[in-house]
Amino acid sequence: MRYRKVPDETVRRMPLYLRGVRVLSERGQSNICSKSLADYLGVSAWQIRKDFSYFGELGKPGVGYDTSKLDKQIRRILNLVRSHSVVLIGVGNLGSAILSFTGFGQYGFNIIAAFDCDANVIGKKKGHVVVDDVSEISRLKKNSVDLGIIAVPASAAQEIADVLVSIGIKGILNFAPVYISVPKKVKIVTIDIAIELARLPYYMSSGQSQGAWE
Amino acid sequence: MRYRKVPDETVRRMPLYLRGVRVLSERGQSNICSKSLADYLGVSAWQIRKDFSYFGELGKPGVGYDTSKLDKQIRRILNLVRSHSVVLIGVGNLGSAILSFTGFGQYGFNIIAAFDCDANVIGKKKGHVVVDDVSEISRLKKNSVDLGIIAVPASAAQEIADVLVSIGIKGILNFAPVYISVPKKVKIVTIDIAIELARLPYYMSSGQSQGAWE
Repeated sequence: MRYRKVPDETVRRMPLYLRGVRVLSERGQSNICSKSLADYLGVSAWQIRKDFSYFGELGKPGVGYDTSKLDKQIRRILNLVRSHSVVLIGVGNLGSAILSFTGFGQYGFNIIAAFDCDANVIGKKKGHVVVDDVSEISRLKKNSVDLGIIAVPASAAQEIADVLVSIGIKGILNFAPVYISVPKKVKIVTIDIAIELARLPYYMSSGQSQGAWE
Repeated sequence: MRYRKVPDETVRRMPLYLRGVRVLSERGQSNICSKSLADYLGVSAWQIRKDFSYFGELGKPGVGYDTSKLDKQIRRILNLVRSHSVVLIGVGNLGSAILSFTGFGQYGFNIIAAFDCDANVIGKKKGHVVVDDVSEISRLKKNSVDLGIIAVPASAAQEIADVLVSIGIKGILNFAPVYISVPKKVKIVTIDIAIELARLPYYMSSGQSQGAWE
């Protein structure tokens, strides 16, 4: 399913809504209104309705949303109906943390391989995979992997991204604090942890009110 | 320095600009234009000028920005002129990765303490700190710490946040995939790694063009 002109910020919030719908559903709520979802997630109900409006009518006005239907609809919108294979490059501290993370499965992500250049790490089992030599990435069958996670130092990130693009990766989650150039058809999301921390002090003196999630 | 009505998205991008300014400065550029900064960071020059406009005139029209002045000005805007003390709660895989991370210093962050509830971790040295028992957090002197990083399981995150608020923490970087309620004066930024990954498949079929950073 393809939707044009949907703001990136809306796409960014949709998985958050999915997480909220699931928690409320697990709590036995088979029907929810945007207000209850908003309260649970710490966002505004107006924002949720606005975001949903990009994808047509997801619920019936006044009667709220059927949680199991909404779960399925959001997964369809986000292309999460089928599972996606993921490779991780860089099995240092952060990469090891990612491999031990159990939260990916609920969105249908399978980390199928991990790569590093450190001989002390190659061949070791981490999470569900055995770490391979990074020089082996290019031997992955073309288009056999959907997404890549880059957790290497900044100096190596571009080279790794180029290899990932060459084997047909469609999206990259990058933790290296550096700009990576990729073809337009490849989506890249960068999480620079230091930069996320660096915006907190701004609010220490300004006393601005704000939501808990953005 | 306090600026009202600055969008959160602008504040989010300011540390990114700071990172870019520094790299270009280290490369010997004492004067840069918004275009060269934009090209380096993979954002639009228009966006940079718009973001800067919230904080008055940062450069002279037509002659660009003096990098060392711009560095100082952005740090002043972001309240990064002085250093900030940080505590980390949760020294599992992710917490250990954060403690070993060397990128915080450049923004003036010092992780001064780390806490966990696991007896196998308490007392061990990780990065520059020795891990303390989580029950000791409340013994930190009130207002002696600026920021907190939460890297505990979702089920424990709210309780930890409450303790951090009680000792006067002003901002929280939260990695637990859950909504945390804090007083309005406390800024909280949540990084849910699975959710960041979960928005990539949306772009796999839509073929939308997009920048490398957002």
